[in-house]
Order: sequence, then C-alpha cells, then structure tokens
Amino acid sequence: MAKKILALCGGVGGVKLALGLSKVLPSKDLVILVNTGDDFVYHGLSVSPDLDTVMYALAGVNDEIKGWGIQDETWKFLNVLKKFEKESWFQLGDKDLLTHIERTFLLNEGVSLSKVTKKLAYNFGVHSSIFPMSETPVSTYLSTNKGEMSFQEYFVKFQCKPIVNDIQYLNNKEAKIPELLEEMIVNEIFSGVIICPSNPYLSIDPILSIQPIKNFLMNRKIPVLAVSPMINSLSVKGPTVKIILELGKTPSTEFLLGHYEEIIDFLILDERDKFSGSRYTNIQQVCINILMRNIEDKKLLAEFCLKLLQ
Amino acid sequence: MAKKILALCGGVGGVKLALGLSKVLPSKDLVILVNTGDDFVYHGLSVSPDLDTVMYALAGVNDEIKGWGIQDETWKFLNVLKKFEKESWFQLGDKDLLTHIERTFLLNEGVSLSKVTKKLAYNFGVHSSIFPMSETPVSTYLSTNKGEMSFQEYFVKFQCKPIVNDIQYLNNKEAKIPELLEEMIVNEIFSGVIICPSNPYLSIDPILSIQPIKNFLMNRKIPVLAVSPMINSLSVKGPTVKIILELGKTPSTEFLLGHYEEIIDFLILDERDKFSGSRYTNIQQVCINILMRNIEDKKLLAEFCLKLLQ
Repeated sequence: MAKKILALCGGVGGVKLALGLSKVLPSKDLVILVNTGDDFVYHGLSVSPDLDTVMYALAGVNDEIKGWGIQDETWKFLNVLKKFEKESWFQLGDKDLLTHIERTFLLNEGVSLSKVTKKLAYNFGVHSSIFPMSETPVSTYLSTNKGEMSFQEYFVKFQCKPIVNDIQYLNNKEAKIPELLEEMIVNEIFSGVIICPSNPYLSIDPILSIQPIKNFLMNRKIPVLAVSPMINSLSVKGPTVKIILELGKTPSTEFLLGHYEEIIDFLILDERDKFSGSRYTNIQQVCINILMRNIEDKKLLAEFCLKLLQ
Repeated sequence: MAKKILALCGGVGGVKLALGLSKVLPSKDLVILVNTGDDFVYHGLSVSPDLDTVMYALAGVNDEIKGWGIQDETWKFLNVLKKFEKESWFQLGDKDLLTHIERTFLLNEGVSLSKVTKKLAYNFGVHSSIFPMSETPVSTYLSTNKGEMSFQEYFVKFQCKPIVNDIQYLNNKEAKIPELLEEMIVNEIFSGVIICPSNPYLSIDPILSIQPIKNFLMNRKIPVLAVSPMINSLSVKGPTVKIILELGKTPSTEFLLGHYEEIIDFLILDERDKFSGSRYTNIQQVCINILMRNIEDKKLLAEFCLKLLQ
C-alpha cells in the first residue's frame, strides 16, 4: 500500500519546505497539515492566511518577495477600504479576494473548511492534499504587555512589537480534525512526519494543541522529524527568537529538542547549531544546509528529509 | 416645517433625474426611495444594484458611460472569478467590491438595510437620504419563455433576451418599509412625489407592490408626478418597450397613464408623445425635453418637476 508523508506547517517559513516536498513527491503521497490558529474574520470574510500561503506557493502564484499573497497583486479594493474604514490594517489584494469571498460563502453554506480548502486548491491547480488542522475555529491568542490579542492583531496590526507573556489556543479541545485525515491516521497510511521550519509557538503548537494530532505523533509508530526554524540561534524570518526570549527560554537547539521532546526522532539543523551535550539523547541531530534561498535548496532539503524518514 | 420631496427610482434611467434633484435641492429636502427588487446574493455577497447606482451617481464616482459601477474601475477580482467559477456573469469591480463586502458584513451583524445604506452613502460623502424600498428582501421574478428567473439573471446573465410572460414581486406582502420613511409619511413631511423615468415594471412597480407605499401615493394628499421612461414611444435605455410589448400592451402615453392612473397627477413627457384623446383626463400631460444627456439637462428637468409640484 502506498505510504504518504504528513508535513505540518504554518505560513512563510514552513511553506518553503512544503513546496520542496511537493516538487519531489507525487502529489498523492503528500499531505500538508496547516495551522489555522491565525484564521480570523475580517469585515465578515473568513481569512485563513496559512492555508492560502501554502496553496498559493504550491500553485506557483505566490508573491515570493512578500512571502504571502499572490504575485503581481493590485490594491484597488484595499485603497477604498483604507479610505472608508478604520479597520484596514490587513492587506487583502484584488486577486486574493476571491479566495476569501468563496471561503466565506461556502462555509456559510455549511461546507467544511477542509472541503472548501480542497475546492480552492483545485481552482489553483493544486493536487496535493492540504488540510486545515481543524474544521472548527481554534484561535491562537496572545497575552502581551499591550493586552490580549489575536494572532493577526499581534502579527499584522501591531507588527510583532508587543511583548508576549503567554499564548493560548482557544477552543482546541473542541477541535474537529478533518475526517479524511482521521481515516488516514486510523488506516496507518503515513510512513513519516515532517515538522516544517515554522515558528514552534505560533505555527506548530496550535496544530499540536489538538489532542488527536498530538496523540498520533506521540504514538511513535512512524518516524517524525523537525526542521529547525533557527540558524545560528537566530530566526530565519519572523518573531521566533523574540517570542522564545519573551517567554523566558533560550533560543537554542536544546530548547527545540525539549520543546519537541515527546514527538520527534530527528532534528534537522544548521551545522552551527549542533549541540553535543544535549540531555535529549533519544533525538538525533542531523546537520545540513537548512537555509532555503531558491527552489533547488527547497528540493534538496525535502529529499534529505524523505531519505532520513525511510 | 420644511417639506421634503420623495423620488422613486430604479437604476440607470431614473438615477439621472435623482441626480438632477440632488443638485437643485438641499440634501435635507430630498429622499430617494430605491427599488431593491433587483437585489440578490452572489457568491455570498449581498448586492443591491440600484442602491449602488444611486449612491455612486450622487457621490460623483459613477461610471457614466457604462451607467453602473465606479469610474476607472479595474477587474482583477473578476478575472480570477471568471477563471475559477462558472457563475461569473455578474460584474464586480475591484473598487466596487467593498460596498458588497461591507453590506454583507453589516447585514449579517443584524444592521438594517436602510442603516447599511446610510453608512455606505456616508462613506461616499452622500448626504441626501437614500432608502431601500424594503428592509426585507422583495424579489422581482420573471416568468419567461426560458423559464422562471430572477431579475439579475434576466438582465445580466441573459441580457434581457428571454420573452417575459409575467412579473412577480416575491415577498412583497412581508415587506418592511424603513422606519424613518414610515415616520416621514405619518408626519406628512413630504410635499410632493416624483416617479423618476425608470422601467415601470422592473423598477417602479416593485416599489409600488409594497402596500404602505402604494397607499401613501393613492392617498392624494400631495401631488405626484411621473416622468415618462419613453421618448417617441421608444425606450431611452433598457428593455422597457420590449417588456411592455411582450406583456401584450402598447408602449404609449396612454399605457403609462393607465399604468399610473391611481397615483399620479402629472405625466411629464416628450412633445412627440403627447396624447390628446386620453381617457385619463384627471392626469395632466406636461411636455418638456426629458432626454437627459448632461448634468444641465438633469438639473433643468429636476427644476421643472419641482415647480410643477409646488
């Protein structure tokens, strides 16, 4: 029976590896499980930023410079919004808008988020399976020195400036994982799991906060690897290191090993980050270039991960 | 006490006179009551074509050549829609989209259509009162040789080609007129009513199908005039004459007089259409140029109507 690879990922960082995997695996063999903790409703539109980033990247229509959205985007709608509405901090492009309008429309019709995602991905010619981590809303919520706020307020509206004290994943206990994913887990269809280099707190932990997914990974029937989101103890992009520090931890390989202790067998990391005195001796540290500057880097890292899981 | 003028109108044709009225009357003295029988939900968005046409015209942002939508519009969103969805016949522009998104958002929040309309008009700097004919949906529905269809399907999707056998205004009995309009009627705040040169069947009759509005006009406490939508027995624009013929009537002044018999005191018409042998002797036919080619024509006709109502 054909075995599939399950990749967990968030937005910008993780999607690079997800794209690499989509280039080296047949589409039927790849399942990408995406963080939806950043999802929010904006002017009545259901927005799923990470699902869209993955979809646009796999479709080859993504804006590589910005890291999100569609390439050659225009902003007529946003300009009208900025003129008329106070809440105009989230950037919705003219070409990007249909995704949110159709998602909102279909969700209101009672279609599940995973089916909506499949439909949208199909529109864009994407045939790998992209699953939301939950059919129901699970929201990443941050306690900061500027008050409590949703992920998008923190990330976009306040540009990651507030100091984070605590992070919660609201309604994670009521989460409903996609039925098809549940079937794949029950039928032992996966041969390995890859945690993409996404922010542990903001992109991966929301997924792991859902018990059936956590249980599946802790089961240890199949190998699980994580790719470090840091190089030389620095974030490749985004607030990873900033948040680790604010939560009183040290951004290091030892931190990552501890963070993923219960679920991973391998940590793929940059040579400079290798830590030989680790207490987590059950996790194998494997060094390779993890900075993905172009599609070749993405494919090379993807192939390396797949070999390790064999 | 200041008296107001009530203008009934639909889209393209009638809005020309509504604009003229807005230029010659102080905004506090003009109330425009707009057909919402064309309203529909498109990809989950609540679209009110006539309300928007009136709003954009009064704001001076309308596309005068097309007769609807916003000037200097772009179509990135529509191009994506056309690529992905079968139902892409209705033209939503990038600048126009916010209107529909905000309307949908606010209606879903429980805000009434008249309050939504006020908010949107305010955005665009429009201070005359624009009222929907009903807070609740009343839908113009056509029986044709191609089957039953909504107004937008007939008008946009099938480009007025089907032959019309019958027209209904669904849910008109449950219509709820805007509370503020009701108060104005009760408080006898209007000194006259103008039926703009819109299609009688498709733009004016939906409004008249709402009993409290019909009753108010039949009351005859104040003068009511209609401006003919025809010149030399031809439609100025749109399918007016075609539909009159398909419904077995003769497109003529006599038809219009009969159609509005119960409610009007004056019919303003082109010299060529004057009919001296009319059986409707209680309605005065008044001739003047009713072709509005530019803003001066619109203002002249508006002033003429206002004088007649004095």
